[in-house]
Amino acid sequence: MEKVLAGHGAAPGGGHREARESREVLEHARKQAAEFFGVDDPERIVFTSGGTESVQSAIRGWGEGAGKGTIYVSEMEHPVVEVAVRRLEKGGFKVVRIPVDEEGSLQWKNMKPGEGPGLVCVHLAHHDLGIVQDLKQAAVFAKSARAQLFVDATFGAGWVSLPAGLDGVDLLAVSGHRIGAPKGSGLLFIRSGFPWRGQVEGGRQENDQRAGTENMPAIAGLGAALAEWKKSGEKFRKTAREAQGMLLEGIRKKVSHAKLHGPKPGPDRNPAHLGMSFAGLEAEALALVLDRVGVAARGGSGCVTREMKIPPAMKAIGAKPEEARSLILFTLGAANPALDVSLAANLISEAVQRLASSLPTSF
Amino acid sequence: MEKVLAGHGAAPGGGHREARESREVLEHARKQAAEFFGVDDPERIVFTSGGTESVQSAIRGWGEGAGKGTIYVSEMEHPVVEVAVRRLEKGGFKVVRIPVDEEGSLQWKNMKPGEGPGLVCVHLAHHDLGIVQDLKQAAVFAKSARAQLFVDATFGAGWVSLPAGLDGVDLLAVSGHRIGAPKGSGLLFIRSGFPWRGQVEGGRQENDQRAGTENMPAIAGLGAALAEWKKSGEKFRKTAREAQGMLLEGIRKKVSHAKLHGPKPGPDRNPAHLGMSFAGLEAEALALVLDRVGVAARGGSGCVTREMKIPPAMKAIGAKPEEARSLILFTLGAANPALDVSLAANLISEAVQRLASSLPTSF
Repeated sequence: MEKVLAGHGAAPGGGHREARESREVLEHARKQAAEFFGVDDPERIVFTSGGTESVQSAIRGWGEGAGKGTIYVSEMEHPVVEVAVRRLEKGGFKVVRIPVDEEGSLQWKNMKPGEGPGLVCVHLAHHDLGIVQDLKQAAVFAKSARAQLFVDATFGAGWVSLPAGLDGVDLLAVSGHRIGAPKGSGLLFIRSGFPWRGQVEGGRQENDQRAGTENMPAIAGLGAALAEWKKSGEKFRKTAREAQGMLLEGIRKKVSHAKLHGPKPGPDRNPAHLGMSFAGLEAEALALVLDRVGVAARGGSGCVTREMKIPPAMKAIGAKPEEARSLILFTLGAANPALDVSLAANLISEAVQRLASSLPTSF
Repeated sequence: MEKVLAGHGAAPGGGHREARESREVLEHARKQAAEFFGVDDPERIVFTSGGTESVQSAIRGWGEGAGKGTIYVSEMEHPVVEVAVRRLEKGGFKVVRIPVDEEGSLQWKNMKPGEGPGLVCVHLAHHDLGIVQDLKQAAVFAKSARAQLFVDATFGAGWVSLPAGLDGVDLLAVSGHRIGAPKGSGLLFIRSGFPWRGQVEGGRQENDQRAGTENMPAIAGLGAALAEWKKSGEKFRKTAREAQGMLLEGIRKKVSHAKLHGPKPGPDRNPAHLGMSFAGLEAEALALVLDRVGVAARGGSGCVTREMKIPPAMKAIGAKPEEARSLILFTLGAANPALDVSLAANLISEAVQRLASSLPTSF
């Protein structure tokens, strides 16, 4: 990235030497991405401006290619997925909702294939609940419905394993900044063999699939990050998993009513994610107190729309309103020194107790 | 940018200290952009992933807000503009073409207002011809047609003066990397007072006008670039203008049939742009020869679609096919040492002569 920013940054579309050098950087990053996923053809990787564009292009691009059909999707997807699906619904597509259980696991057994063509939309790991979905089951259902499978991996990529070669997956969206690449980077994997139409138009960049001068520093950064994950991913995951367990137990030991939402740490949970509720408190107020003691956390998901008072996922899994209102998200990283995590657990527990005792009603 | 990349890079949406610091960087950049344009309300500036997204969002966002109406546009706009307009045309909008003269100047006098609502699409400076359009006339026509005025300033911003406070302009698109900001940066100015709908959806970032985690390094870079232009723009323009004249005369002196397209250097031409044709040669071949001697130039515009054999602007101004096929674009910069420019003029002239003499037919 530094090299690109410092001058090796010509638009890669030209015929001159500077453009060819840029093209090498671009195609090297594309190869790094293909290698991370175990995908044979790097040209199936399209670089975008981030996870939001990737998701939107995946769904709307499929819709424009298909023209009509059925979309299978849960009621707890990220707002980016939900608005893209609703846009197609408004345009005449049928939407079938995939039920979820109390941990947020998508329930496939009673799902019936609708009218084709179809798109099955699932997330890899949920942004509020941390649950990892079973992509094999999703792929089996998609196949039975003669539908394409879109995986929103904007949460979970890197942290959670994907099928080798993205087997069974037709579209996959990745957000760069959640795996150590810079903000403004992202990618979309598009398997060939079904109609899909690019959503950013007006130029032939990215194999005619995404117009606009390529964001070279971001692309170089995303390629490097994926190469790093390929090399050290297991170490990153192990570190996060250990920190996750330590943080959860540390808080639970001191705050007995703290409740974990989504599955317990293990193969069904994103190791980088811990979502807990503290019934009786307001998430935003708790986040402010946490900030004052040096813990950066967020009250519920950052991406909510104006109409959403509580995270839709909390409603979908049947959480109580006081749990939904007090959901706090902690993000673990690839490096979490044990001392820091245990300090954080103490600070969080103290903040919860302090805020609770300052409120007029006890719980 | 370096500071943001080195760690001050939290998503600005959260409530914690790190997010607030990012928010300061974000709003500082927005203020720098507003100051560059002389716009009172920074919230009218929306940061995007680049010029392509800005143009597409402007036109499609207007279309979704209006629902129906008339679009006034020339036949020589950039493909990004053209595809967005055609998308709306397919959706039922009427398209009225603005005629151009032989230099590419938009001709307003015979234009008649169509059915409202309306959108007038003009460029600030043309990407192939370098011509600067008269935004005052465009604004007068837009007003008479009760239409909004969209200015594609992806070429020309910085290099060409804009009306103070963007008077008369309702939508304006800027590409960051053409004014020294990094690739992947851009902005869209949206005046309030008419219906417009965001095209990247699913989050409340950018005042609900552009979803997705903000590309903080790119935004910081664009803000800094615009502040630099505000301070030193006159110097940059003067330097480019001098180099432009020197390059044009240097080539003309040695290649008598070299032809400048668009207006002669002066107030009607983007000082950073020189587009010349060398009838008898193919632009791509000439660009390759130029590359070999160290001159990075491009054969015609980089952004053409599969169907376009020659730049549409060359057709619109009535250029001969052999001129259209041999159009080479030279981009001047904010720093062009006289020695380099005169060397470039010599190298270009020699390359043209060498390539011409190697061809079986003379001209």
